[in-house]
Parts: sequence; structure tokens; C-alpha cells
Amino acid sequence: MSTPSILILPGDGIGPEVMAEVVKVIDWFGEKRDLKFDVSHDLVGGAAYDKHGTPLADETMEKAQKADAVLLGAVGGPKYDVLDFSVKPERGLLRLRKEMDLFSNLRPAQCFDALADFSSLKKDVVAGLDIMIVRELTSGIYFGEPRGIIKEGNERVGINTQRYTESEIARVARSAFELARKRGNKVCSMEKANVMESGILWRDVVTEIHQAEYADVELSHMYADAGAMQLCRWPKQFDVIVTDNLFGDLLSDAAAMLTGSLGMLPSASLGAPMDNGRPKALYEPVHGSAPDIAGQGKANPIACILSFAMALRYSFDLGDDATRLEKAVEKVLADGVRTADLLGEDGATPVSTSEMGDKIIEAL
Amino acid sequence: MSTPSILILPGDGIGPEVMAEVVKVIDWFGEKRDLKFDVSHDLVGGAAYDKHGTPLADETMEKAQKADAVLLGAVGGPKYDVLDFSVKPERGLLRLRKEMDLFSNLRPAQCFDALADFSSLKKDVVAGLDIMIVRELTSGIYFGEPRGIIKEGNERVGINTQRYTESEIARVARSAFELARKRGNKVCSMEKANVMESGILWRDVVTEIHQAEYADVELSHMYADAGAMQLCRWPKQFDVIVTDNLFGDLLSDAAAMLTGSLGMLPSASLGAPMDNGRPKALYEPVHGSAPDIAGQGKANPIACILSFAMALRYSFDLGDDATRLEKAVEKVLADGVRTADLLGEDGATPVSTSEMGDKIIEAL
Ligand SMILES: CC(C)[C@H](C(=O)O)[C@@H](O)C(=O)O
Ligand SMILES: CC(C)[C@H](C(=O)O)[C@@H](O)C(=O)O
Repeated sequence: MSTPSILILPGDGIGPEVMAEVVKVIDWFGEKRDLKFDVSHDLVGGAAYDKHGTPLADETMEKAQKADAVLLGAVGGPKYDVLDFSVKPERGLLRLRKEMDLFSNLRPAQCFDALADFSSLKKDVVAGLDIMIVRELTSGIYFGEPRGIIKEGNERVGINTQRYTESEIARVARSAFELARKRGNKVCSMEKANVMESGILWRDVVTEIHQAEYADVELSHMYADAGAMQLCRWPKQFDVIVTDNLFGDLLSDAAAMLTGSLGMLPSASLGAPMDNGRPKALYEPVHGSAPDIAGQGKANPIACILSFAMALRYSFDLGDDATRLEKAVEKVLADGVRTADLLGEDGATPVSTSEMGDKIIEAL
Repeated sequence: MSTPSILILPGDGIGPEVMAEVVKVIDWFGEKRDLKFDVSHDLVGGAAYDKHGTPLADETMEKAQKADAVLLGAVGGPKYDVLDFSVKPERGLLRLRKEMDLFSNLRPAQCFDALADFSSLKKDVVAGLDIMIVRELTSGIYFGEPRGIIKEGNERVGINTQRYTESEIARVARSAFELARKRGNKVCSMEKANVMESGILWRDVVTEIHQAEYADVELSHMYADAGAMQLCRWPKQFDVIVTDNLFGDLLSDAAAMLTGSLGMLPSASLGAPMDNGRPKALYEPVHGSAPDIAGQGKANPIACILSFAMALRYSFDLGDDATRLEKAVEKVLADGVRTADLLGEDGATPVSTSEMGDKIIEAL
């Protein structure tokens, strides 16, 4: 097989800073573990708009389609708030998701032992927490038509459409069941079948796929509002949660915050297998572009580094190397090394973004 | 003015039990404070379906339209899960909201001092918490057309429509700003303007109403996913939150759970003023029908009793009596009186649903 390719899109805000640390990690794996990657860089979001007048140039889209894995930093910032909807930084990210057809967004909500005190939740509620939210990422109200702001009489009317086909639901359900089999073997599906017909179809299709193909996995259903409650009350009741694009957006953010590890959480967005057997894939930290601290060396690069670990595992079948990287991160945290977002305890060693990267390389 | 009328719809599950305690409280106000109400009872939800084959009979709907206040217990239960979407218990509640045009749903998320330990959040994060979520209740994806499950080729497709007009947004925004003026004078509006055009219109209209009529109130905007995060991280940053029907459903449930006081939280759903100046109004506890504990005397009647307190305040302009009732509830809690949902501390006095009602009457 030819050298696997990685396309790096640092994006906006703290994106470039945290991505610089990932590049160090990639280099380490190249030198010490002889894992060679063909790495290229390009622009997305506001950075792409500044140069090309669009948040994702067509050439970049083409490169992303061909890459074995895309690593993305973050998009957006107040500077771009005034832009028209169609060229906002977010559209670049949404175009990548949609055109690469990355339907399965894996968002682990994990509480790192060393950081359990950082949660706003009581320690016993979050310590050891390890759940996986599988969010549908290429359909639903994010992409449904008709949409827009129209004029009706004297009034403006804002319209969006939630639309799910059977096969869209089936494929993300399969991906959740597959993951569950490698974890706690439990899936909880969340929708609002009590008020939305699209939720009824969601529930029906998940149930059908379960009965036909995954009857060995334990399946439960929950209304999304009850799900939000239960995540706040006792998140350890969950193993894998599967839900639609919009609910997944809110629920995974809430879950990430609960862990106290927001600057630590990676994500993987996976599509169908390519000719070489690897899935189309994009990896990005769950945190945003944090424009308020951009360029100050304060950002925590761990979420982005752990996103690369997910790439090792899901794109390159290098589970052992992924684990090695994750363990290195855990060791550094256990040693009390902390970026600014995690300060507050006694005895912590405050470090900058790039020092954190160096410490992780050392631990490797 | 003629005697004000109250329509009581106990509904399903624990609804009838908790409502029985409200009736005691209403009677107390009649005897001791000479507040006479013309009280009638009727069916909603599964109970109505069992009798009439519909979750809300037309006669009941008519009575609700004429009542000065409707008190509702809860709807739904596993027995009705098999019913067709159009006659599910929830449709009864949704019909009431829609036909009475109750566009402004007030959901206080308040942490009772005596119960701060019950939250899964750290005590300092929730103690003293008092925020008000104003949820739009008669539009958005709950009611938008087209909707349904259709067949396209071989596939089923589930469709729902989010639709907001300018005036629908404007009226709920006004109701949030009015409330804020009587509280902390701050409103945070939540939507997904970064991905939904209906969110852009929401943000624009809220901003316009603010500038034109409520510039003295502090207004901020937040994406709903960030809002879910911030509610979990540091809810005390908020005073009034205004958001759409679906986001409001999830966010208010999460907020309610955070307070640790789920069995304690009331809600008011208000519409336009009637001829007598009173708003159309429905009051209900935030908790559901809890079929697992129904009929066992375990349910906590406080949320339903506090919903009646909201009725005294918002429908009958009896703020002092509302406060008196709220203080009685606080006293009973401070005395360590607890229904089953709140047991766990040392020194608590366990009571049944009806004993809790009696204790509150005593405290009055
Ligand atoms: C940036 C934004 C478009 C995006 C989303 O809403 O999906 C983000 O919130 C996320 O969760 O990845
Ligand atoms: C019972 C259900 C229809 C309802 C809703 O979704 O609005 C409930 O969850 C609520 O929040 O009042």
C-alpha cells in the first residue's frame, strides 16, 4: 500500500496552535515507530474565506476526498459573524461532512481520573465515566430542504426541514451497534417519537436493525429530553448513545462538559469505506475555536492530539499506537502537567500549549 | 367579577394523586382566605382515550378555552405506547397548548436550599440557583407542516418542519423581556443560527424587539449546544433564557434535573389576555406521569402544588398568596419532611403523597 495520506486543516482561532502540537506527534510516530504519513496542509473556515472568499475551496474539498484522514482544528470567530450565512466558517465544515458523507460522528465523553475534580458534577457521578455518543452527521435538520427565510405577507418566516430516510437511520444505527459490541454491548437510542414523526421512523428503523442484525446487543429508547436529564443525573447508566444530528449536537456538548474534560475530548466522523478499505474520515476536537484565547499559548492541545489517536485507531488500524498515545496523555495528566484551562489544583505544573505537546512527546 | 374558574385535568400516572393534594390546597384558600374558585374536573391523555377514544374530547377543549386557569397533572404511560401517533396521550396536551395558543411556557429552574445535596452537581454550582426558562410552546417543529412518514421509492422518509414567523418570535421574546425586568434584568436567547435559517430569524427578531422596546434589559445570544454546556457548567450565569419549542424542551429538562428538585418544579403556559384581562393559562408540573410509581402514594405533590402557586400569581394576580404557599412548601422542606423521591439524608421524615399535602396545609 502507498504511504497513507493525512490532510491537515487547522482552521481558525486556537486551531493552528493545537494542530502544531499534533504535527510534532505525527513526526514522532514517523521517526520512532517508522509510521510514515504523507502530510499536507490547507485552509478551512474563516482562514479559507480570508484567502479565497469561501470557507472551503473546491481544491481543498477534492484533497479531502482523496485523503486517508482529515484532521481539522476548529472553525469560526467573531470576525466572521457579519458574513452571509452561505460563506460563514461553519459552512466549510458542514460541506466537508456532507460531501465526504461522514454519517457517523463518534464523540466519546470520558472523564479522565486526574481531572474528575474539574467537573461541575459530583466526583462519584463522573469518575470513570466512559460513554460514546454516536451522532448522525450528514442529514436531519442541518441539511433538509426546504430551508431559508421567506416573506409571507408582511412577515418574515424562518424554515428548516428535518428529513431522515430509512437508510440514513439504518447505517448510523449499525455503526452504533458495531461500536457497542466492542464496548459495553448497550445502545440507547434517543429521539422525540412522542412529538415528531421523524422520531417515530428513527425508533422503528433502529428497532428493526436491532432485531434483524444485532439482537445480542441490549437496546433501549429514550425521549431526547429525558436523555438530557439522565445524562445530567447519572451518565454512567449509558454505554453507546445513538441520536440524530441536532439532538446529537446538544447532547454530546452537554455530556462533554459534564466530564470536566472539554479541552480533552476528541471526535471522529466516519463515512463509507474507500477503495483501499479505509473509511472516509475526519477527526476534530469537540471544543471550538476559542477566539478569546487564540494566539496566546493557552490552548489545550490534548483534544486535538487525542483526535489523532482516533485516526490511528479508526483509519489506520493502529489500535496499539493509539493506545500508546492515549496512555502518554494520561501519564502527563497524572504528573500534574496542566494547560491554563485546567489550572486550579495545588501542585499542578502550568504549561503552555507547546510545552504540553513536548511533555506528551517525552511520555511517548 | 364572577367567581374565577379552574379546570382540573389530572391525566395519567401519578397525575391524579398529586392533583388530589392541590385540591386540598385550593380548599384551604377557599376556607381560610375566602378565595372562591369554581372548580371542575375532566379527563386528558390516556384517561380521556380510555373513555372517549381521543386524548382530549372536544367538550373538554371547550371547557379549557373558557376556564380562567387549567391545572394539568401529567399524561402518558406504557399502556398507550402502542396507540397511533394521532391519539397518543401527548396529543391531548399538545392540542391544549396549540388551541389555547399558550405561546409562552415559563419553566423556573430553582434549587431549594434544603435539597441542594440532591443535585448531581456540586453544591456551590447549584445552591441558590434561580433561573427562568421561557420556552416557545405553540410553534416550531412541534407543529410545522409538512410532517409525516412518506414513501419515496422503496424507502420510508420521516419529515418534520421547523417554522417560525416573525410575530411568533416577537411575542415570546416580549414575554421573556417582561419577566426579566421583574427579575435580574438579563435575557439570554438560544438558537442554532450558525446552522439553521430559522435560528437566524430568531436571533434577528429578538434583537429587533430588544432594541425597539427593551434596551434597558441586558441581552445576549448563545448557540443552543453551547447553552446546554453552560447550563451544566455554571447555570448561575443565567437569569432568563428564551428559546424555541424543541430546544426549550431539552434545555429546560436538563436545567430542572440540575437543580436536584425535579419533583418540585412547576410550570406555567401563558397565552394572550382574555376578555376579563386574565391570560389564557395552563399550569403543570415539569415531571412526567411516572407510571412506575403511580398509585403507590410515593409521588411528590410539590411540583403540582407550586404550579397552583404560579396560577395564583399569573392568572389571579394574587402574588402574596402565591408567596405564602411557596413559603409553606419551603418550611415543610426545611423541617425535613420528604416524599420517597427525596429520601436519603439522615433525620428526614418520610411521608406519603397525601401526608406531604397535609403538612403543607399545616404550614399554611
Ligand atoms: C460548528 C458547528 C457547525 C458544529 C455543529 O453544529 O455541528 C459544532 O457545534 C459541532 O458540534 O461540531
Ligand atoms: C409530553 C411531551 C409532549 C412534552 C413535550 O415534548 O413538550 C413534555 O416533554 C414537556 O416538556 O412538556
